Amino acid sequence: MIYQASVTAPVNIATLKYWGKRDKHLNLPTNSSISVTLSQNDLRTLTTASTSPDFTSDKLWLNGKLESLDTPRTQACLADLRQLRAELEAKDDTLPPMSTYKLHIVSENNFPTAAGLASSAAGFAALISAIAKLYQLPTSPSELSKIARKGSGSACRSLFGGFVAWEMGQHPNGCDSQAVEIAPLQHWPSLKAAILVVSDDKKDTPSTSGMQLTVATSELFQWRVDHVVPARFEAMKQAILNKDFTKFAHLTMQDSNQFHAVCLDSYPPIFYLNDTSKRIIKLIEKLNADEANNDGDVIAAYTFDAGPNAVVYYDEANEEKVLSALYRHFGHVDGWNKKSYQQEKDQQWVGVSRVILTSIGEGPQVTSESLINEKGLPKSTE
Amino acid sequence: MIYQASVTAPVNIATLKYWGKRDKHLNLPTNSSISVTLSQNDLRTLTTASTSPDFTSDKLWLNGKLESLDTPRTQACLADLRQLRAELEAKDDTLPPMSTYKLHIVSENNFPTAAGLASSAAGFAALISAIAKLYQLPTSPSELSKIARKGSGSACRSLFGGFVAWEMGQHPNGCDSQAVEIAPLQHWPSLKAAILVVSDDKKDTPSTSGMQLTVATSELFQWRVDHVVPARFEAMKQAILNKDFTKFAHLTMQDSNQFHAVCLDSYPPIFYLNDTSKRIIKLIEKLNADEANNDGDVIAAYTFDAGPNAVVYYDEANEEKVLSALYRHFGHVDGWNKKSYQQEKDQQWVGVSRVILTSIGEGPQVTSESLINEKGLPKSTE
Repeated sequence: MIYQASVTAPVNIATLKYWGKRDKHLNLPTNSSISVTLSQNDLRTLTTASTSPDFTSDKLWLNGKLESLDTPRTQACLADLRQLRAELEAKDDTLPPMSTYKLHIVSENNFPTAAGLASSAAGFAALISAIAKLYQLPTSPSELSKIARKGSGSACRSLFGGFVAWEMGQHPNGCDSQAVEIAPLQHWPSLKAAILVVSDDKKDTPSTSGMQLTVATSELFQWRVDHVVPARFEAMKQAILNKDFTKFAHLTMQDSNQFHAVCLDSYPPIFYLNDTSKRIIKLIEKLNADEANNDGDVIAAYTFDAGPNAVVYYDEANEEKVLSALYRHFGHVDGWNKKSYQQEKDQQWVGVSRVILTSIGEGPQVTSESLINEKGLPKSTE
Repeated sequence: MIYQASVTAPVNIATLKYWGKRDKHLNLPTNSSISVTLSQNDLRTLTTASTSPDFTSDKLWLNGKLESLDTPRTQACLADLRQLRAELEAKDDTLPPMSTYKLHIVSENNFPTAAGLASSAAGFAALISAIAKLYQLPTSPSELSKIARKGSGSACRSLFGGFVAWEMGQHPNGCDSQAVEIAPLQHWPSLKAAILVVSDDKKDTPSTSGMQLTVATSELFQWRVDHVVPARFEAMKQAILNKDFTKFAHLTMQDSNQFHAVCLDSYPPIFYLNDTSKRIIKLIEKLNADEANNDGDVIAAYTFDAGPNAVVYYDEANEEKVLSALYRHFGHVDGWNKKSYQQEKDQQWVGVSRVILTSIGEGPQVTSESLINEKGLPKSTE
């Protein structure tokens, strides 16, 4: 007998950045953060979790390759989920004792890993959601987000669609450090995102070690955490609730800049933005200046995570203007949804390898699509 | 009758950065700063100041071109110097009434303006020193530094050789915002500097408007000014007095990084470092790691002003190691003092247009070399 469940989970891109852990093992952050969940049509992880009394060990196949489940973070997630299942089983002895069975997990992304998009958030959100479904846990998304958080901090935000806050919490055990919904996708469904995948010859500093370095060495960091983020968190929530794109955009751009500023203030300094990233920033600045109305409204917002890729948020109403401005210089790369956004292309800039056009999206979704065959092994390796 | 005096003045490169004005008209800074004065053998401005009852207007020739003296900053400097002269004349009526004569000033740099090295510090220091000499003012260098400061903030530090502090002062009128000597050149004469002139296709944000933007928009800036710089100022002074290169180097690199961090935290963000600047930072990091002894001593320190050029400080004892590391990648550009620092060159990096090898130097020097002919006009245009 093999039990299985499959779930897809989304990528999220922070607009108020998570950078800094106050507890490395529990992935407890030094500040609250906010993100937008992106559409799974374009970026998602599909995970099938299966369990059986016949399985002899926990196994994970990731994008077709057998990977270790034996990391402290993954083990912490599995232990939490098994304990929740065991509690259910203790209350209802008709339930199969899945908490004692081994797991076979198969997971695939619908986007190339080479794109350099952080896939760990979608990955852990899908893993936790698939096992929770398999175990038929009645656990809320916020409760599950605490488990996902232990796997990868920002994964907790992928437990919801739309606009999501990760409340940092105060307790040392992390019981109040969880994701909550600020507003669902339906609140502002016209929000779109263009991802510019920027090529880079150097290896970026991994975010975990980068965060540790910033916390330990940046003299500006503590000020950000204590005095800047709390006010910005409330202001950004309000901007989202009011669908005030201009306010949302300014806060998003300022917070991206400040995150990269504390990276630069780390010692030795951490650089994620390269000259192409900076060109994109200048391009968005110019677009906003050119299109500003009398109220000073802007139409696009850039944000950069721990790498040179740009994510540009905009409202569908301004799609033609925003994509035209990007197409002028990056029209030669793959990923555009139509042949041209304007008659003329400008000088084509190197440094971007592809564009991904997407939009705001839903949280994890149960699916009937399964990655596991009747033997409990990946279909892809059959 | 034409009276004249000629003075040369040096460039200085801050190791604790001046960024932010609390008074724009008086050039009063938001924080104290520290610099090293560079040798005039390599970088200096020579200025001849002349005056005569026959001159009909104030005139300035800068690098062979007639320039306007009619800027508020230059006018403020001239007014201060004329007032000091008038006070002397009031006490001694045998003195010619130069304070009422017009001035002809001729000024030339010994380095190409195209190098993108801030020449205004040396320029104003030479201007003020040459007129002070012409007027035979008994004024101390610190007093003259307050006048130079009104012309260009960092010019005040070029009134001294060696290691110089610009004490920010507290008074609204600027009477205590002046340069003082931390230690003369003779204290640590083996300190050297290699300037890597980095090519850049974009126009940098001018420092005055950049500072204003940072003060107005960076939420991290005030923390830097209030809480980081005061301690760093004292620590850097001590490192200089102790000739502790490792401590001096770490503080210098950290402060360069933090200055660029608050630029990035400005809104819209200001970028002065480009990908070549970052490569140089990584190269110095690697050199220091490779050469670190058991005490963790380092041998080189980078610093960047409001542009992509790198200044690398090192002690003469480590010249072979430091210059070899730079020569590996930039050996193809002009400015090296010998043919090779090591047998092998590595991959040659583009992005640097020349190197200037120099050392710590003296403050302004009176010279018999004159740029003005017997008619009170530039010799160069004869």
